[in-house]
Amino acid sequence: MSSKDITSYFRFEPEAKRIEDLETPVPVIDIGVVERNLKRWQERCDKLRLGNRPHIKTHKLVALAKYQMALGAKGITVQKLGEAEVMADAGIRDMLLTFNVVGDHKLGRLADLAKRTDISVVADNEVVVEGLGRAGVAAGRDLSVLVECDTGSKRNGVQSPAAAARLAKVIDQTKGVTYGGLMTYPAAGTRKEAEAFLAEARELAGNASLASQTISTGGSPDMWSDEGLAIASEYRAGTYVYFDRSFAERGICSYDDCALSVLATVVSRPTNERALIDAGSKALTTDLLGLKGYGVVWSMNKAEIYNVNEEHGFLDISNLARKPEVGDLVRITPNHVCPVSNLFDRVVFVRGNDVLGAVKVDARGTVQ
Amino acid sequence: MSSKDITSYFRFEPEAKRIEDLETPVPVIDIGVVERNLKRWQERCDKLRLGNRPHIKTHKLVALAKYQMALGAKGITVQKLGEAEVMADAGIRDMLLTFNVVGDHKLGRLADLAKRTDISVVADNEVVVEGLGRAGVAAGRDLSVLVECDTGSKRNGVQSPAAAARLAKVIDQTKGVTYGGLMTYPAAGTRKEAEAFLAEARELAGNASLASQTISTGGSPDMWSDEGLAIASEYRAGTYVYFDRSFAERGICSYDDCALSVLATVVSRPTNERALIDAGSKALTTDLLGLKGYGVVWSMNKAEIYNVNEEHGFLDISNLARKPEVGDLVRITPNHVCPVSNLFDRVVFVRGNDVLGAVKVDARGTVQ
Repeated sequence: MSSKDITSYFRFEPEAKRIEDLETPVPVIDIGVVERNLKRWQERCDKLRLGNRPHIKTHKLVALAKYQMALGAKGITVQKLGEAEVMADAGIRDMLLTFNVVGDHKLGRLADLAKRTDISVVADNEVVVEGLGRAGVAAGRDLSVLVECDTGSKRNGVQSPAAAARLAKVIDQTKGVTYGGLMTYPAAGTRKEAEAFLAEARELAGNASLASQTISTGGSPDMWSDEGLAIASEYRAGTYVYFDRSFAERGICSYDDCALSVLATVVSRPTNERALIDAGSKALTTDLLGLKGYGVVWSMNKAEIYNVNEEHGFLDISNLARKPEVGDLVRITPNHVCPVSNLFDRVVFVRGNDVLGAVKVDARGTVQ
Repeated sequence: MSSKDITSYFRFEPEAKRIEDLETPVPVIDIGVVERNLKRWQERCDKLRLGNRPHIKTHKLVALAKYQMALGAKGITVQKLGEAEVMADAGIRDMLLTFNVVGDHKLGRLADLAKRTDISVVADNEVVVEGLGRAGVAAGRDLSVLVECDTGSKRNGVQSPAAAARLAKVIDQTKGVTYGGLMTYPAAGTRKEAEAFLAEARELAGNASLASQTISTGGSPDMWSDEGLAIASEYRAGTYVYFDRSFAERGICSYDDCALSVLATVVSRPTNERALIDAGSKALTTDLLGLKGYGVVWSMNKAEIYNVNEEHGFLDISNLARKPEVGDLVRITPNHVCPVSNLFDRVVFVRGNDVLGAVKVDARGTVQ
């Protein structure tokens, strides 16, 4: 694997040179931290001989997808056709769409994508398989379909190894698609149970002479755990590019590894207990993920955003010796970084205190 | 007041003719319900001789802002400069920006806006007043500034009537700004307390020969209550254009008044208890507003979206006699409609079952 310097993948728009001159609220991303996060994970995958298929839903940036590929990722993961289309336009061919594609319009878009990329897909029911088959026929090539297995997340997925093998047979018998293997998004901490499910499904499919070439698992929360990993041929992680408060608080990363913070301005100091900032739920979301508050200002002794309205963030300053003043800037580590990228048309990259420039969030707001 | 038909304010982009042919997830807005909601509130304001200054943060659409003005609104409310700029570009002149403007770049943008509109602003501290003064001087006209009062919301705002009067004097003595009156966003159900605060602040300002020409209150939750309203010269309501589940559940409107629903497709039916749909937190947000779940499908006996991931919605179908199948469409009434508009680049307008077309959400994603 060889890769050029991470900054060479970007074409930055001109921006203020100093962080303190940026207009707020805006996501500020430290490129050095991103580089370290991406390399560290790729090294682990290489060591484990595990295919790395990063999920681009977190950053939604062509530049970072290409850098991930250059570091050694075998391909990318996308969650919707809109993301796939943006990445295909940028020349990325190997992608897995981990969401059932349903509906004639969408199947038409999938067929178009299949003509110009090596996109593979998933299914957990026969209605979806039938549609994917039509898309494959329209594209003139068989689409590889992984059977999505519910190994404990209680989300999408067939409910048993036997059901997985049955659906594999349906795929095998459907024109326009081929059976490619198994895919799961395990609940955190349950990869051992997931492995047992996948092993049995693989065996049952094998009994019907169906080879599970790809066994795809994922999830940043369990990325450092070896448990139940031996069966997987590839791993899908998304959040690890930026990390966030929920990961830092669970000890999956340190706050130093959190690459993205939301830069905001103190606009009001009504009392000595609270400051109001210009980042509310339309900048931070209301995702809690089991945490208290909507983000923290690490540099202020982890002062908490204890409430949000749409454009207001309520910063708890009651325990601060030096209270922030109107006009001060704060950098908030959000609870959940993935939906934050999705709220902004552009993000700013920095290296330490130097602003490198802004980039459009390429795949933000694209239709499902 | 005279207004043309509501549809004449729109220039719809072509779309599928039938709701069942739309790509999901997408916000679907019934224009007849919007019309009724807007007219009903304007009639009430007319009857009370209360200025109507609708907040456009909910719809972010030029067409609806103009229709609200045509129905009799005296102007609009915006929450950030980006919204103001979009509305100014569309020719709307009378607007109130209800958020402290802080920072040199923003003050420059405000000065530009002040040159081409009648924008007025708010302040709750001297640092903000000083900046607004500079913007007014740069614009070559005095900016009217309302003093924001914290009458119980515990958000922005001066903390006492005496502090309001003091800040009014500071405004009066600052070049580039004039004192325009008082503004508050009362906590729900506390308009009587707010009235007492505002009356005292007005009296104290009056003692210093400062006339509080505008007294601006707001909030859709209390829009039908007369309590503490006599003092107000204008009212800012936003959510009333579409309403949402939180309003319906509190009895402020009926579900029939909820103009916006998120159209989604059932993509998976792993068990008889749950269906997965293609609208998750990136379509519905995770705003709870004290409710259980993230939205309901009214037409399915209010079946609840009991969980969301970014692109997955978990629909509870355990109590349904007829379970939805993969491919079925559902229309979700979201908990909180304002941030939903903000997640989509375009929304679709319908009249009953007829699709009128799509429109770009003009002020979505604009910088603060």
